[in-house]
Amino acid sequence: MKILFRPSRLVLLPLYLICLCISQALSAQETLEAILQRVPKAPPGVPVPPLPDAPRRYDTAEGQAIEVSVIARGLNHPYSLAQLPDGTMLVSERDKGQLRAIREGVLDPEPIAGLPTIKGGLWMGLLDIVPHPRFVENHLLYITYDKPLENNATGLAVLRGVWDGKSLKDAQDIFNTGPGVGGSSRLLFDNAGLLYVSIYGGGEEAQKLSELRGKVLRLTEDGKVPKDNPFVNTTGARPEVFTYGHRTIQGLAPHPETGAIWGLEMGPNGGDEINILKAGVNYGWPFVSLGRDYAGPWQAKDFKKAGLEDPIVYWMPSISVSGMTFYTGDKLPLWKGDLFVGGLRMGEIPATGHLQRIRFNANGEEIRREQLLTDLRQRIRGVYQGSDGFLYALADEEDGAVLRIGPAGK
Amino acid sequence: MKILFRPSRLVLLPLYLICLCISQALSAQETLEAILQRVPKAPPGVPVPPLPDAPRRYDTAEGQAIEVSVIARGLNHPYSLAQLPDGTMLVSERDKGQLRAIREGVLDPEPIAGLPTIKGGLWMGLLDIVPHPRFVENHLLYITYDKPLENNATGLAVLRGVWDGKSLKDAQDIFNTGPGVGGSSRLLFDNAGLLYVSIYGGGEEAQKLSELRGKVLRLTEDGKVPKDNPFVNTTGARPEVFTYGHRTIQGLAPHPETGAIWGLEMGPNGGDEINILKAGVNYGWPFVSLGRDYAGPWQAKDFKKAGLEDPIVYWMPSISVSGMTFYTGDKLPLWKGDLFVGGLRMGEIPATGHLQRIRFNANGEEIRREQLLTDLRQRIRGVYQGSDGFLYALADEEDGAVLRIGPAGK
Repeated sequence: MKILFRPSRLVLLPLYLICLCISQALSAQETLEAILQRVPKAPPGVPVPPLPDAPRRYDTAEGQAIEVSVIARGLNHPYSLAQLPDGTMLVSERDKGQLRAIREGVLDPEPIAGLPTIKGGLWMGLLDIVPHPRFVENHLLYITYDKPLENNATGLAVLRGVWDGKSLKDAQDIFNTGPGVGGSSRLLFDNAGLLYVSIYGGGEEAQKLSELRGKVLRLTEDGKVPKDNPFVNTTGARPEVFTYGHRTIQGLAPHPETGAIWGLEMGPNGGDEINILKAGVNYGWPFVSLGRDYAGPWQAKDFKKAGLEDPIVYWMPSISVSGMTFYTGDKLPLWKGDLFVGGLRMGEIPATGHLQRIRFNANGEEIRREQLLTDLRQRIRGVYQGSDGFLYALADEEDGAVLRIGPAGK
Repeated sequence: MKILFRPSRLVLLPLYLICLCISQALSAQETLEAILQRVPKAPPGVPVPPLPDAPRRYDTAEGQAIEVSVIARGLNHPYSLAQLPDGTMLVSERDKGQLRAIREGVLDPEPIAGLPTIKGGLWMGLLDIVPHPRFVENHLLYITYDKPLENNATGLAVLRGVWDGKSLKDAQDIFNTGPGVGGSSRLLFDNAGLLYVSIYGGGEEAQKLSELRGKVLRLTEDGKVPKDNPFVNTTGARPEVFTYGHRTIQGLAPHPETGAIWGLEMGPNGGDEINILKAGVNYGWPFVSLGRDYAGPWQAKDFKKAGLEDPIVYWMPSISVSGMTFYTGDKLPLWKGDLFVGGLRMGEIPATGHLQRIRFNANGEEIRREQLLTDLRQRIRGVYQGSDGFLYALADEEDGAVLRIGPAGK
């Protein structure tokens, strides 16, 4: 029998390399749905108890007793909270794409009018809200959301609107990513009035400066590119990029003393971390991580690599971090200077969300970490300091809530 | 003015190097007391609740409801538990240096007679107990303990005695480390009948093959050196050494399928880990670690290094791991094959001890981790599978206890 085509090793090797490239390109384009399919499902054996009706008291490690109250219920997957100078709290309902107001402790049953059409759903919808640093003068609110585009696509948009005390006026996108971007995003204004926007990035696109995914962007208040952005003179790079190599930034917080921007990054199965964001720096995803793929293998062979910036805090197992704030108030004095981080679930086990407190020494090195509110079993999506010096946490459930944390017995 | 002695740079450099060597030698000799002084004290703000009188029911993530009962109380810092073929459980009381018996669920008020003089106290005393693999024939028990020596020194000793059903007879040391060694130790017989002894090592002595500290030893059942130990032909090395570069091995468990010996290693502030122990391998302490010094700085610049073996499980924050067993029973079928690890406290916060369950995939890679018994707030020092298929955990308190974990409602 005559063999018409017999592949030699010299032919097979390039073929193999081509296949490898294609598979890598495909993995870089992995969708949220595809990731979800790879996440092993644990049966929800531990029920989430109903949130308590009365305030609940807890002792905490530093000797400070706290009281936790539910101040608003019935919120659909609350994603972020912004407090306005008059005390009003605005809460984004992610999946429903609605903005809600809490005034003097009462949740307005009517959603805020004036928002554009939003593509809500699993892991997307109405995302972060921040007031302009000079909100008292200009009443400007900034919002990130998933925007429906042509051909069933969506993109991430940064919206700016004027708050008239009841609704959003003149809402306009000041920045659009275009299609194929979205899912999770946080906003922060720095001391210089520049706006940071985090963009979700699941795969190797986080390393490509020509793409927005897996980046933190730095914009002017009008959504333009500041002239001193790190990659404005780099050929092929998006000039909006401030930092890159991120998986999913789920929190941005300015350090109260240094002013440095801390970024909270959610890993897969393990690999949650906090990074100090510095212009032009590569934080390494997906080439370094202390995380595992959901199926078990390590995400990367290396935990560190030259040229890739190291985090300053790690979690293993992961707690699915989301939301972060430094406490600077006086109501909970023993927690002053401590960092609070929300957790959606711990160790890939459902109904294990909680709030974590991290204490640092004078050099910014971690010395202690406490789990709080573990018995509530809520997915904590965000944590904020109110103007009253209390902490506020978002319970991200279908029937979600706002929790207030203050001193006990006062 | 005439300068009689002007040190040149050529003189200062060797002087500096000598000082460096002295300071390193001193740090290698750091005592437990000195380490304790460096550990920042958190005020015990969260009280440890009394252990429940009635069995307590818990839902767990896999959908398996469990029931936890206290089967023995009033044990002084229980360190290990060994079950004999007749069902008797022997428990070591570390600080008091006593061995106690639980027969048919009842703790004998009298300690076991026949033990030698033991130096008990903080982190030392009567440590691990294991029966000989052929205990049914020879009734031999093996015990590690801190032995008082001349000049107020102590050393670690491995004791062998014959159990006569009530007391220990003919108890004799089969191995002695000599002075300056001790504090924590675990024992394990492998399938070939060889005895593994873990030796505490806080500093760089863990890297010196001429020392026993920071090692796992491999001995015959008579305390002699097996001919095939990895360093028997290495000049200057202690021939008992099996693995090195350990900080504090707090658990040894054979994998039920592979037979490999898993070692549980307690890190400082972070850095708890599990290693698979292989002959002659260096596990890197103190040159690689995911832990921090108690004061905050990272233990080491690197998390990994060529030639140093990587752990397969990490904790960050640490839970102060102690005690480990694979569950192979039938009473808790949804946990079959899972690994159970005790935790003394989490994130350097008092009263946060608990039990952890780790699930692995078929390749031995972690996919899920659950915290159990968190509300009890007990320091879990050890975890064991009983011949009845239940799990047993040691609560290491001044007034400690043995907990039994079985299915709920049966």
